[in-house]
Amino acid sequence: MKKLLIAAHGSRISSSNDELQVLVEKVSDNLGVAFDGVEVAFLEFASPSIEIVLVDFFNSQTTEVVVLPYFLSAGAHVMNDIPREIQKALDQWPDKKITVLPHIGALDTMAGVIVEACNR
Amino acid sequence: MKKLLIAAHGSRISSSNDELQVLVEKVSDNLGVAFDGVEVAFLEFASPSIEIVLVDFFNSQTTEVVVLPYFLSAGAHVMNDIPREIQKALDQWPDKKITVLPHIGALDTMAGVIVEACNR
Repeated sequence: MKKLLIAAHGSRISSSNDELQVLVEKVSDNLGVAFDGVEVAFLEFASPSIEIVLVDFFNSQTTEVVVLPYFLSAGAHVMNDIPREIQKALDQWPDKKITVLPHIGALDTMAGVIVEACNR
Repeated sequence: MKKLLIAAHGSRISSSNDELQVLVEKVSDNLGVAFDGVEVAFLEFASPSIEIVLVDFFNSQTTEVVVLPYFLSAGAHVMNDIPREIQKALDQWPDKKITVLPHIGALDTMAGVIVEACNR
């Protein structure tokens, strides 16, 4: 089984975290057959953590996880915190596979998304 | 004159802030005739600040600014910090116009951007 984990920052404002859950549902509806499920995990201020979600995945037949850092730029969370959490999980489950995608802000499409938002 | 201000978080990692400058150039190339220019401003860890960019705009013939909060969810920066900076500027220049767009993560297109990133 292959799962998608959307790794987000998390906020002290709970409605902000709820936004992510709504997004996950939309992604889930459109993700297609390449994945067997998608979950969001938070680095700070909200749960579940990346660690908790990975434990959950690997304790329930998931063999491969694709991590999408849901961050707009490659700051300390993308460069240090997310890789550290992933390494911790791989140390514990060396037979599992975790792939990390580029953070969402690295996509070429983001400039187009901004232009579209501004010209509405 | 109407300008676009992309309001980003800012990072202690300078290459992360450089990413935003590259993005601004791409946006600038594609923004079309509705705007007379685009700048990025940072809330933390990087310059220029929102205040500095707005002062710069309003001291040089800009009458209207559209602010795009370049944040994925409506946390404290989007809900409190950016509105506070804008209010400060409007108190100083009551004859200028500032419009704030929804934060980038609120766009319906974001789920599609994620799905595309995962299925490459």
